[in-house]
Amino acid sequence: MLYTEIPTLRPVTPLLDEINAPQHLRQLEQSQLAQVADELRQYILYAAGQSGGHFGANLGVIELTVALHFSFNTPQDRLVWDVGHQAYPHKVLTGRREQLTTIRAKDGLAAFPTREESEFDTFGVGHSSTAISAGLGMALASRYQKQDRDVVAIVGDGAMTAGMAFEAMNDAVAHDADLIVVLNDNDMSISCSTGGFAKHLAAIWEQGQFVNIDEQGEAFIQDHPEWGYNSRLHASATDAADNLFKAIGFDYFGPFDGHDVEQLVQVFNALKKRKGPRLIHIYTKKGKGFAPAEAEQIKYHAISKISAKASSAKAPKYSDVFGQWLCDEAAQDSRLVAITPAMCEGSGMVEFAQDYPERYFDVAIAEQHAVTLAAGMACEGLKPVVAIYSTFLQRGYDQLIHDVALQNLDVTFGIDRAGLVGEDGPTHAGAYDYAYMRTVPNMVIMAPKDENECRQMLHTAYLYNGPAAVRYPRGVGLGVEIQAQLTEIPMGKAEIVASFNEQYEEHISLLAFGSRVGVAIVAAENLAQKHDVAVKVVNMRFVKPLDEKILSELAEHTSLFVTVEEHAVMAGAGSAVNEYLAHAQILKPILNLGLADNFMAQASHEQMLQESGLDAEGIQHSIEKVWLKLLQTA
Amino acid sequence: MLYTEIPTLRPVTPLLDEINAPQHLRQLEQSQLAQVADELRQYILYAAGQSGGHFGANLGVIELTVALHFSFNTPQDRLVWDVGHQAYPHKVLTGRREQLTTIRAKDGLAAFPTREESEFDTFGVGHSSTAISAGLGMALASRYQKQDRDVVAIVGDGAMTAGMAFEAMNDAVAHDADLIVVLNDNDMSISCSTGGFAKHLAAIWEQGQFVNIDEQGEAFIQDHPEWGYNSRLHASATDAADNLFKAIGFDYFGPFDGHDVEQLVQVFNALKKRKGPRLIHIYTKKGKGFAPAEAEQIKYHAISKISAKASSAKAPKYSDVFGQWLCDEAAQDSRLVAITPAMCEGSGMVEFAQDYPERYFDVAIAEQHAVTLAAGMACEGLKPVVAIYSTFLQRGYDQLIHDVALQNLDVTFGIDRAGLVGEDGPTHAGAYDYAYMRTVPNMVIMAPKDENECRQMLHTAYLYNGPAAVRYPRGVGLGVEIQAQLTEIPMGKAEIVASFNEQYEEHISLLAFGSRVGVAIVAAENLAQKHDVAVKVVNMRFVKPLDEKILSELAEHTSLFVTVEEHAVMAGAGSAVNEYLAHAQILKPILNLGLADNFMAQASHEQMLQESGLDAEGIQHSIEKVWLKLLQTA
Repeated sequence: MLYTEIPTLRPVTPLLDEINAPQHLRQLEQSQLAQVADELRQYILYAAGQSGGHFGANLGVIELTVALHFSFNTPQDRLVWDVGHQAYPHKVLTGRREQLTTIRAKDGLAAFPTREESEFDTFGVGHSSTAISAGLGMALASRYQKQDRDVVAIVGDGAMTAGMAFEAMNDAVAHDADLIVVLNDNDMSISCSTGGFAKHLAAIWEQGQFVNIDEQGEAFIQDHPEWGYNSRLHASATDAADNLFKAIGFDYFGPFDGHDVEQLVQVFNALKKRKGPRLIHIYTKKGKGFAPAEAEQIKYHAISKISAKASSAKAPKYSDVFGQWLCDEAAQDSRLVAITPAMCEGSGMVEFAQDYPERYFDVAIAEQHAVTLAAGMACEGLKPVVAIYSTFLQRGYDQLIHDVALQNLDVTFGIDRAGLVGEDGPTHAGAYDYAYMRTVPNMVIMAPKDENECRQMLHTAYLYNGPAAVRYPRGVGLGVEIQAQLTEIPMGKAEIVASFNEQYEEHISLLAFGSRVGVAIVAAENLAQKHDVAVKVVNMRFVKPLDEKILSELAEHTSLFVTVEEHAVMAGAGSAVNEYLAHAQILKPILNLGLADNFMAQASHEQMLQESGLDAEGIQHSIEKVWLKLLQTA
Repeated sequence: MLYTEIPTLRPVTPLLDEINAPQHLRQLEQSQLAQVADELRQYILYAAGQSGGHFGANLGVIELTVALHFSFNTPQDRLVWDVGHQAYPHKVLTGRREQLTTIRAKDGLAAFPTREESEFDTFGVGHSSTAISAGLGMALASRYQKQDRDVVAIVGDGAMTAGMAFEAMNDAVAHDADLIVVLNDNDMSISCSTGGFAKHLAAIWEQGQFVNIDEQGEAFIQDHPEWGYNSRLHASATDAADNLFKAIGFDYFGPFDGHDVEQLVQVFNALKKRKGPRLIHIYTKKGKGFAPAEAEQIKYHAISKISAKASSAKAPKYSDVFGQWLCDEAAQDSRLVAITPAMCEGSGMVEFAQDYPERYFDVAIAEQHAVTLAAGMACEGLKPVVAIYSTFLQRGYDQLIHDVALQNLDVTFGIDRAGLVGEDGPTHAGAYDYAYMRTVPNMVIMAPKDENECRQMLHTAYLYNGPAAVRYPRGVGLGVEIQAQLTEIPMGKAEIVASFNEQYEEHISLLAFGSRVGVAIVAAENLAQKHDVAVKVVNMRFVKPLDEKILSELAEHTSLFVTVEEHAVMAGAGSAVNEYLAHAQILKPILNLGLADNFMAQASHEQMLQESGLDAEGIQHSIEKVWLKLLQTA
């Protein structure tokens, strides 16, 4: 069935309602699976409309998910979903049907599979391209433990471009591991697939036809010699000559129609009897069965709740501020080129990509390469800008150190989604970038207090002749005016942005970084009114180089230093302040506010900040506690 | 010529002596190149005998290097050497012949290509698998700048297994970049190549013959249609059907004999006229031309100076302590499995690999995969130990956070080469691991004061049911007795290891981490004698969880806290101490000693520690400076 609307009332799903665990599914007749799939699709449409969240990918894997749980003995057999934003149908079939409407909300289902949530979630995911490695680990463990089980890693074509997927395939062959990889090929990652790998898949596809299980059924079942291990390297058991997966040493099967649930069952049943590394190539359509999503796949990657109010915020997203700056800077300087690891839309680069196609480089999901590519370009006198999420830069960390910073190359990093990210939960939080970057020599690290400062900091980073990063949060700015004029911020200079009860000489110095400056001012004002205490609020701007001068000047009349940041306290920006004060032998009480030393489950961004004590009220209360204690001991 | 001894006298090299830059080489006749290669080989044998250093790989690329500099217009054309331990011949031909005997020594030539050293060193390297990304960056920059130049990335087969090489090849095809990749296939990385990729290369090789330029000469030179871009995916222009590189979209040529210098010149001259991504597959032999090295390739990966005294140290290497512990723990617990990313020998795992082949996993150069593979194994109840160098764990950082720590999985990390590493220089320094690990929730991080404690800490990390790391330095231990008995160290417990002038109540608390404990005791004793001051030395043992209790107890009578670590001061272990003291509102002077915020050029490990003020004398002097100042202000 092709649906055209997201239902607002719960659809009637009689078969699905009986499936509270995969064994219930496995009690059905194979001929009933198409109906299960149809009901599941309707239910996902309804539930995603209630909760918002990832969408197109889930509609694409309905038949696949049904076939997997029907064919394999889950959870004894292991399914490992790559990325996991396509795991909604899996959650429904594994006992979480009624909770699906709570997905991504505080105390609801997690956005991705997580081991804590279900024994069917064999591996927690969120970042792409981990499933083959994890699945291989499980397969090798099972062999060593003499456990007879199948392990199936389900990976999208977009995720296959990341190096670690290749590393894992290479290693699976080294161990002749009993591992099944399902390549879910929809010719899209989140954005559009790019590169030689995508061309290769397209070439396989262009050969025209789906493989039909009826024709190949015999070959699957009998132990036909040309499928065997020894001939794996040069077998041409399918029509696809020159096949990348066969070249690396996998047995390759496909491509199959990923929406023919009964045929998928036949394929899985046949292939699970075989051994060794097997790749099953299926072709699916993102948004399958929902007409608008089939037509506009990028737009329908994720959706908002249908009940959500249209955002009244006039402030632009930080991503869009970055995108606008990129276009403006590019117009002034022909040396600017920009690189994204497959996050064109998310990073606000659509306009730049259209206006400067010869200066725009989408390298696919390939963070390691993205950073070193920038280094290579910088060697030739270009000025590359790498747009990357904080959590994904973790994948390019060695390259940041070894290829960029060590050579002091002129690369600008626009680090998006820094801090907490709300509904995507802990896998996507950007909570560690100050720590992992500031320990690296030659780095300049900035964080803006608002969207205008973000723009000016990006300009400042760009002008700086060396590696420089601006990290900015998910979501919208404060609604301040954005100056078209690009103005360099003096290197390593903080600014005092508020001062309350200035009649007192002694004061609290509230040193705020990035997104916490605005709420720090509110907290300071409340403190000043409530306790008749003087508070100065500093927008620190630079985590590195730190404004040591202002710290020394402030110290003279500071009774309490407070640092506040949307980042782990451990090794973070406040910790940099501690280091300087220790170095300068300034003995003053210091309160470091930031994220606690744990991973936070998903909630809204605001809820998470509140829980962390990083909203205005939380900051105020934390300071009060310490301050009152100081008064008592004074 | 096949040589059998390393010459102790400088060989006679009349042609080589005239080559002070590649243009001198290019003035020679093609027929003279074999003699240049022979002289170069003799000179490398001699020079490496003088300096010690990487060896086998350099002998393997003599002809290749001569052919590259003869065929390409360096430095206008760009050569990018991957890893760079094979760049000695390149250094000789590019004006650094006479300095080669100083390689890896303080103020001498760097171990690897570095941009600071020569305009011919287009990209600084050290870690593997960066050259295709960097070369692609240069090629795309040249296209954008309308520069007509060739870019050649020279990559070993071992380095090709790393994901970022695959990411870069994928992207080169996306951009149809004018990039030449020379695959230098010696069927070895440092250890032995492993995995599907190695099997694939072996399969190409097994087809038997080198391609002969004479037969294919026509095809190279004329614009033969089946070499063109459109047919790239399915061309079978060479005899190698089912070719991985062609599958990904490269034009593939080879395999050629990498020791036939004249033929290599013909190949390069023919192929540089073509466009698009080209891969030239050559076969070379590590240690070529030196009989002992040809016979034992792993042993001759690197050599010591022939003048070096046999080490008199009886203390074992930390790597060997790790290896012995691994075997002992494995004997007790069948759940133990061990993973190395291609560093079997370097990590001390030879014996384990022999004794427990079914529990030993060399995943090739693939750090991202290594970490997530461990996570997958841990999900199944195994207890994986990942042996990895500090600098290479930077490549698996996201996997450490997202796949191991976030799921609180039971993975033990044996982190070798932590701190400064001497002759390999800044690319291999492990100066950031405390910072990048301690900011991550759930991590336990230890550093041993000596080799016995290293063993016991590994045992402690292993018993801990979650992610735990032990980081230990390059080189040998202190020579203490190693207890066979495995004894768990209480979690988060430091120990006072020395106390001088205990008659005074007030004292300096010298908090030492890992390798700095021993010298801290010496420094403390000297301070106590010289200044009649009380000093307590604490072996902190744990960077996380920190022993907060001991800090609070000591604080009562501490006049000065000093932290000392072989790690960057920024965000390091001392910074963790600062955080706690701030949190506990303990207002005492703190001196954080560690590595300064810069990359250090190569020298001996001892020289680097001295330069950093981290030997006993340096620690003493740093404390004196602060202490005397405190006395003055007191």
